[in-house]
Amino acid sequence: MKIVCSKSELMKSVNIVMKAVPSKTTMPILECILIDASKGEIKFTTNDMELGIETVVKGDISERGMIALNAKLFSEIIRKLPDNDVTISSDEKYQATIICEKSKFSIAGKAGDDYPYLPFVEKDHFISISQFTLKEVIRQTIFSIAQNENNRMMTGELFEINQNMLKVVSLDGHRISIRKIELKESYENRKVVVPGKTLIEISKILSGETEDMVNIYFTKNHILFELEDTIAVSRLIEGDYFRIDQMLSSDYETKININKKEFLDCIDRATLLVKEGDKKPIIIRVDDTDMELIINSQIGSMNEHLSIEKEGKDIMIGFNPKFLIDALRVIDDEVIQIYMVNSKAPCFIRDENESYIYLILPVNFNL
Amino acid sequence: MKIVCSKSELMKSVNIVMKAVPSKTTMPILECILIDASKGEIKFTTNDMELGIETVVKGDISERGMIALNAKLFSEIIRKLPDNDVTISSDEKYQATIICEKSKFSIAGKAGDDYPYLPFVEKDHFISISQFTLKEVIRQTIFSIAQNENNRMMTGELFEINQNMLKVVSLDGHRISIRKIELKESYENRKVVVPGKTLIEISKILSGETEDMVNIYFTKNHILFELEDTIAVSRLIEGDYFRIDQMLSSDYETKININKKEFLDCIDRATLLVKEGDKKPIIIRVDDTDMELIINSQIGSMNEHLSIEKEGKDIMIGFNPKFLIDALRVIDDEVIQIYMVNSKAPCFIRDENESYIYLILPVNFNL
Repeated sequence: MKIVCSKSELMKSVNIVMKAVPSKTTMPILECILIDASKGEIKFTTNDMELGIETVVKGDISERGMIALNAKLFSEIIRKLPDNDVTISSDEKYQATIICEKSKFSIAGKAGDDYPYLPFVEKDHFISISQFTLKEVIRQTIFSIAQNENNRMMTGELFEINQNMLKVVSLDGHRISIRKIELKESYENRKVVVPGKTLIEISKILSGETEDMVNIYFTKNHILFELEDTIAVSRLIEGDYFRIDQMLSSDYETKININKKEFLDCIDRATLLVKEGDKKPIIIRVDDTDMELIINSQIGSMNEHLSIEKEGKDIMIGFNPKFLIDALRVIDDEVIQIYMVNSKAPCFIRDENESYIYLILPVNFNL
Repeated sequence: MKIVCSKSELMKSVNIVMKAVPSKTTMPILECILIDASKGEIKFTTNDMELGIETVVKGDISERGMIALNAKLFSEIIRKLPDNDVTISSDEKYQATIICEKSKFSIAGKAGDDYPYLPFVEKDHFISISQFTLKEVIRQTIFSIAQNENNRMMTGELFEINQNMLKVVSLDGHRISIRKIELKESYENRKVVVPGKTLIEISKILSGETEDMVNIYFTKNHILFELEDTIAVSRLIEGDYFRIDQMLSSDYETKININKKEFLDCIDRATLLVKEGDKKPIIIRVDDTDMELIINSQIGSMNEHLSIEKEGKDIMIGFNPKFLIDALRVIDDEVIQIYMVNSKAPCFIRDENESYIYLILPVNFNL
């Protein structure tokens, strides 16, 4: 094999496929990037057996062939080369040579044929959405997936398509995040659970531009993200997602309007007094137009008053401050609405048309 | 005690004194910042018993007194407060209250009287130098102090004043870094060895501006750095520094002129093939106007050719690439001169008037 690509093009493509290189694996071939120039185009492929990424690299093929090169080493070599054309070649013993200007690297590769194929995905059912929107919706929900694997379903996110509506849901047993996106067209109804890890990696290769689109294809067991030069295929999590509708309720006894930034900054300050791993709640006391936030820990105590607008009853309620912070950080509204029933019932942060709903369970507290 | 300072002024002062808060200590009081408003001004003090820092904080004293507050907690609280005036007060039980706008923190402090004084330094002998120059000279030498404490003298840097010349030297047994600075005035001759850790921390509080000056005072056992609102006092390392003059020589068999950036980038690329802890040398082969750099490791091999100007003999010599990289990174010249005798003798990188000298010992190699 012998190909010539610009350093910048190689760097761009390597950065994309690095997202599916496993950090630990029992299959050494998976630590490689497959460079495939056996057909008319140059393709880089990686695959951690849950997520696989394939990207087309602009460049010239002077001799067809394929080779698998250690991803970390290859990426570091490319990064450190001068900004010029790079020639990558390999011989029949899978010895690879990388030449740029007067610099020449020789490294051992592996047979490209040994690299596991990406699963084939039938391109029947898909939706189209801007890369910006997908990146945003992941950011706005990913924090409330479960961190440990005890319940596999909780480590993924529900993607539910209902006509022209995409609903994305994550939950970890203490809180639920829901975002609804209106799609430009109507699609067939569908529900899949996408691994959180896949979404985190996909999110890193999305451009974040509203004009760049991503097509998302679904099969029974796989999801495929199609970007301009790149496709990413992931397994889905099998089984039925939690029935969350019965956990949602629009009844409330107290409704608060509060400035989001003031509320967030205040909770953020309060958490200084909570040591990592300590489960000290922040106590919120609502009294007419005043909200008092109180925290008492071994380190010290803090209280602060915020101005609010209130409908309904006064209330005193405790929360894990991290859960409030996580939700508040991803809400863009300047003023938010918080709905509560009593100090034992879930609290809801949601906007008028429920484009977002953040449910947070309260915790017990002692004053 | 009761004082009022702006958040920004507090933050600035806290950031300065944090540099002398020990990360580990058997004396809990040293984890604190001493806030001393017992006299006409507000002062913050910290002291890790090797380095002590004192800085004057602009603000108003409405009740004189002093209190010691946990440095990390106090710094985090100040950082998270709104950008406004902050009132800090303490009662007779050393309970401190920090109020900013509607936010109120209460934390436990310690008696200020228990805080160890900074050593008294007689201000007899001093030199004056720009903060920029001191910061630069530390950066340009600090990398070649010894990392372990086996030889205490090697963990410090020699500061030698000879009339209007300041010479700064560091060495670790494999290399020597020497920088000479011309001072604006002549001073009494003096030699002291300053702990490397002190210099690293001092360097962080130096402004890096050529117009800001720092006065450096010397006594037998201490060095004192005097900045605008801040003084830092450090112990010196006792004993006589190594006699380096006998290790320096101006004889050479080969002299090379080489572009510094090309040389550095090339070595930097080559080190990709050297695993952490592996002692693979980079081999340099000089042949007329060509320098070839060669590295062979288990990971792969690299070679690259660079254009040079040469006087004297051809040579082949091996180096620890890290030592070359460290020295090259802190030299600002576009083209540098390298002087060599043979493959067993130290190599020198130095400029015409010896404002800098970097001595590096070669290593054995097999081709």
